[in-house]
Amino acid sequence: METAKRVDIAIIGTGPAGVSAALTAVNRNKTVLLLGSREMSEKVAKAHEIRNYPGLPSIKGADLAEAFRKHLDEAGVTIEEKRVGTVYAMGDYFALQAGEEMLEARTVILATGVVQANPLPGEKELLGRGVSYCATCDAPLYRGKTAAVIGYSPREEAEAAFLQEVCEKVLYFPMYKEETDLPAEVEVIREKVTGIEEADGKRVVRAGENTWTVDGVFVLREAVAPDQLVPGLEADGAHVRVNRKMETSLPGVFACGDLTGTPYQYVKAAGEGNVAAISAAMYADKLRREEK
Amino acid sequence: METAKRVDIAIIGTGPAGVSAALTAVNRNKTVLLLGSREMSEKVAKAHEIRNYPGLPSIKGADLAEAFRKHLDEAGVTIEEKRVGTVYAMGDYFALQAGEEMLEARTVILATGVVQANPLPGEKELLGRGVSYCATCDAPLYRGKTAAVIGYSPREEAEAAFLQEVCEKVLYFPMYKEETDLPAEVEVIREKVTGIEEADGKRVVRAGENTWTVDGVFVLREAVAPDQLVPGLEADGAHVRVNRKMETSLPGVFACGDLTGTPYQYVKAAGEGNVAAISAAMYADKLRREEK
Repeated sequence: METAKRVDIAIIGTGPAGVSAALTAVNRNKTVLLLGSREMSEKVAKAHEIRNYPGLPSIKGADLAEAFRKHLDEAGVTIEEKRVGTVYAMGDYFALQAGEEMLEARTVILATGVVQANPLPGEKELLGRGVSYCATCDAPLYRGKTAAVIGYSPREEAEAAFLQEVCEKVLYFPMYKEETDLPAEVEVIREKVTGIEEADGKRVVRAGENTWTVDGVFVLREAVAPDQLVPGLEADGAHVRVNRKMETSLPGVFACGDLTGTPYQYVKAAGEGNVAAISAAMYADKLRREEK
Repeated sequence: METAKRVDIAIIGTGPAGVSAALTAVNRNKTVLLLGSREMSEKVAKAHEIRNYPGLPSIKGADLAEAFRKHLDEAGVTIEEKRVGTVYAMGDYFALQAGEEMLEARTVILATGVVQANPLPGEKELLGRGVSYCATCDAPLYRGKTAAVIGYSPREEAEAAFLQEVCEKVLYFPMYKEETDLPAEVEVIREKVTGIEEADGKRVVRAGENTWTVDGVFVLREAVAPDQLVPGLEADGAHVRVNRKMETSLPGVFACGDLTGTPYQYVKAAGEGNVAAISAAMYADKLRREEK
């Protein structure tokens, strides 16, 4: 494991909440690690028209995403395209496992959005026992074996392609309508997955009228459940409990945006990102004073 | 008293919180009364540069105010330049006293900002006994008499000019540096007011080394204390207590922006305005169903 320089604030998510948190954090002279996608949030980019983001009347989602990207550029914030698997509380800092890398931050702001999909039957029960959310982390377990990938967006195809390099065989179940663009060896199965089971030490994917028996199953979505991402975090279903300062149940961990509950609105998310960043900055300042 | 058509949501204040609330409310098909100033909020308009309003990088305060104004125009929202003196809870609606008019709304969103100035010594004690916050309401009490106006911004000069039409004599104490632009009859006194007292049934204004004896004193600021504006509202100093839905202690009254506490940030205010509007819209919908 490689260890990176410890930043003041790691922000997970590049929707309006994460972008707003990053902009405020750098304005407060904090070092920031913004983890997400350069395509920003799918939810923003795909929005047809947003009419109530004050100051930007009737803006297309793609244009709002572009405005956010430009603003980050101007502020000198780079988006790191890394997927965080787990956030570990280490006492006076947090370790963020992103693939093979371990990142360090004094505080963490969660801005991952909400998981819209319900977990598949069997998914939670078999997690860690043949079901995984992280291809980078768990691919080595399936070297020379068969893996199924249940992908909820075209972005997951890169993970399936990577698994094909390691595994003997990869079955890909796209849970979306778009055409797939995958290496020829990956077998694409256009059936809606309805559940995951266990049988004779193997995993069974149930889809349509059929079943497929594999060694491991990767369930890949844009966002993972918050208490999955940060063990010990107090969650209320897909939402994280926060107070008006955007503090979660774990000191040093803040949350903002759709993750904290309804309404799911762009400017609400941006406002919360701002508050989370100011709370995190104050927390990091306190830690820095103690480090001296 | 004239009675207006009852609207779903009355919004008091035209800073980022009030503007955001209005935009979301009309998008939710609610009837809206936006009360404030066409110059928007002084705090926004005078900001040198705002660097963390996501999507509008390094924008001048005046330009952000202009963007808000355009957005309201596009959304068909008109700003009513009325100053609300008191909001009365009437059971299933609210009555907003604005000068001689009585406005009606099913719900009220407070977005008035915070009163930055501390009350003057004697101000709270003498309120309603020779001290007033509303020239329009109380001018008739001083017909043919002497009134002092303590104005905290040039906008208050219009009120002093109006009082001059009614009173025998008006003394104007500007609590700001800008030049005054007042009718010649108004006596401008460039001394910092330090307190208001009572003596022999008259009011005494103490400023600099001197005192002035008058019949009535008008203390005029951009914002009044929230529990002054809405009797019975639970306040914590200059702030109103709210929960994450922006509900105050009074059902049907919501608050957003600087009024709800720090951080005093534009995008935080806009985000809260959005949430307040959605909560108010749901409340108004419920009332409408009951009205049927």
